[in-house]
Amino acid sequence: MREVAVIGVGQSTFGKFPQKTVVEMGCEAVIAALQDAALRAKDIQVAYASRMYDCWVTGQSILSELGVSTIEMVNVENACCGGTTAVRGVWKEIADGHYDIGIAIGVESMTTSPIARKLIPPPKEDFEGQLGATMPGMFAILARRQIEKFGATVEDFASISVKNHHNGCLNPFAQYKKEFTVEDVLKSRMVCDPITLFQTCPNTDGAAAVILCSMDVARKHTTKPVKIIGSALLSGEYKYRQEEITVSLLARKTAKMAYEMAGVGPEDLDLVELHDAFANEEILRYEDLGLCKTGEGLRMVRDKATWVGGKLPVNPSGGLLALGHPLSASGVRNIGEIVWHLRDQAGARQTPNAKIGLAHMLGGVVGSLEAGACGIHILAR
Amino acid sequence: MREVAVIGVGQSTFGKFPQKTVVEMGCEAVIAALQDAALRAKDIQVAYASRMYDCWVTGQSILSELGVSTIEMVNVENACCGGTTAVRGVWKEIADGHYDIGIAIGVESMTTSPIARKLIPPPKEDFEGQLGATMPGMFAILARRQIEKFGATVEDFASISVKNHHNGCLNPFAQYKKEFTVEDVLKSRMVCDPITLFQTCPNTDGAAAVILCSMDVARKHTTKPVKIIGSALLSGEYKYRQEEITVSLLARKTAKMAYEMAGVGPEDLDLVELHDAFANEEILRYEDLGLCKTGEGLRMVRDKATWVGGKLPVNPSGGLLALGHPLSASGVRNIGEIVWHLRDQAGARQTPNAKIGLAHMLGGVVGSLEAGACGIHILAR
Repeated sequence: MREVAVIGVGQSTFGKFPQKTVVEMGCEAVIAALQDAALRAKDIQVAYASRMYDCWVTGQSILSELGVSTIEMVNVENACCGGTTAVRGVWKEIADGHYDIGIAIGVESMTTSPIARKLIPPPKEDFEGQLGATMPGMFAILARRQIEKFGATVEDFASISVKNHHNGCLNPFAQYKKEFTVEDVLKSRMVCDPITLFQTCPNTDGAAAVILCSMDVARKHTTKPVKIIGSALLSGEYKYRQEEITVSLLARKTAKMAYEMAGVGPEDLDLVELHDAFANEEILRYEDLGLCKTGEGLRMVRDKATWVGGKLPVNPSGGLLALGHPLSASGVRNIGEIVWHLRDQAGARQTPNAKIGLAHMLGGVVGSLEAGACGIHILAR
Repeated sequence: MREVAVIGVGQSTFGKFPQKTVVEMGCEAVIAALQDAALRAKDIQVAYASRMYDCWVTGQSILSELGVSTIEMVNVENACCGGTTAVRGVWKEIADGHYDIGIAIGVESMTTSPIARKLIPPPKEDFEGQLGATMPGMFAILARRQIEKFGATVEDFASISVKNHHNGCLNPFAQYKKEFTVEDVLKSRMVCDPITLFQTCPNTDGAAAVILCSMDVARKHTTKPVKIIGSALLSGEYKYRQEEITVSLLARKTAKMAYEMAGVGPEDLDLVELHDAFANEEILRYEDLGLCKTGEGLRMVRDKATWVGGKLPVNPSGGLLALGHPLSASGVRNIGEIVWHLRDQAGARQTPNAKIGLAHMLGGVVGSLEAGACGIHILAR
């Protein structure tokens, strides 16, 4: 397989924009990525686009607006992991030598989707979901277990929100740019005990795009290309009900595959972007990704190790909690965030001297289905 | 790239089954394909699933019911070409050496989808679509052009429906198993002049699956494996408004790529399965696929060359018109049909001594967007 570089990244400002179409937001991200790469739309040879709600040749609809036609395009869906799946699709196309330049696009209009202003509803055949095992319900159960088994407090969870909302203030693309205190977070409306509103990610509209290419192409554009050194995607069951429910065996296996391909370990990472749909979830992912041992995620929170300026910044972008979470866009957007840090272009939230970063996303896991996907990319300069 | 074989095919009976879930229909097809291949569910190493409406980790939902977990799964969408895109995804995974055994699944529940009992509605931003350029509207314009420029008659179009409904009577999986006369077809309700109801494909629920593998694996299962010798997928604009509107440049380029990869031409084909969403469309696809010259498709119809028992049977399955059209399932299902003929297992509709077959699908093309995809596979024994 050939080495693959990221030479263009772009995203729209995330927020609630019901007046914007998916095509408009998608074009905004694609144009930004093309400008970043100094490429024309016609240079794109293959495209993977991800959108979960109302997908209807979304990639074609976006790219035809920019004059891109008669190339291979694939629209993918993998719940919140759709964007990651799109990036991996393009990565394989180039690594396997089918094409030299490709684009991955993620886009979602949550405010105009069929689930606008609703919790993500469980499918009809999901009886546990219908009885209350919704996303907040599932993560509230995990939070209870974190409190019971590892001694976590609601203040610990709230401090994750405080951190990510602080980071959102440093990111011009963020949906929310407001500092919160632990007290603010805990005082916000109760969604599912112990999870309060400010511990949940918002409904968000937005798009992101990344342009990947072979090293031959990359070297014509830059002397310091960012490379994808690890890529892994696994789907199946989360099996939260077996063994210890705070442990995702699927996520751990995915992480192991990505680290092995990259030839690095968690100790080599300079920053991480991960799936923080709920504040307490971030701690679980520290452990799944091997950033610490099982049960020790709490210590990373209390030590402030994962703040911008800390030992290992996590979600410097603001994460899903503050930057926002347009489902299929998030897995493309978080790879762009890593690239900006590796290029020293992340502004006020820059990780100093960042050389290796990891972007993690997962999706699915509704009630009894527990079916989903976990995708991880490791990037290096 | 490695050679890839098809060793398992299966489908559910097509029809209107609002009481069946997508998971039930998907499992029916997957189990049939596994039995056909003499494989266990746990032998599957990678899966691509396609579903257009309500896709929500559909592949995972189906395969987790059968105990398949912790493998790479990708859900794809490409309008009616989604199933073809899934097959091509698995084909690449195996051809490129990532995996040895994979499954492509296509499934759709049209009767419970958001568009149940409606024409496929154009997107809000598609002004031409809102003004009437729906699917039947677009194909009626093409039919008018076929009449005006090539001398086609409504009886010619109706005779395509007569042929495909005759074939449906020979296929135990078909939604409709009833013979029609040209008069019956023309007397049915007018949908969009000159297209009557029996010249349109129905709303259909159903699923299909195919299992692909490397030649090493295939040789352990059979001495006569069916191989995929050509695969091509292109997306972009149909540009029906440029040049001659009955010519799809996108489809012609896709066909050229597939023939070149396969090292065969249209003259080498023993049977064809193609996208016949409307009766008049079938004639256009004869021409796009090079089965005859532009404008000569009509002669193939009048000569009955494409009937079962004719020189080049087209849609012996009954096609979308009679077998039915569960959107994302059709591009998987039509590859299964070709395999059955190449294995001499197609029963009453068998193409004698079939050695090479082509499966074509296209999707998209709504009003002014004209964005879509065309996918073609060529198979040989």
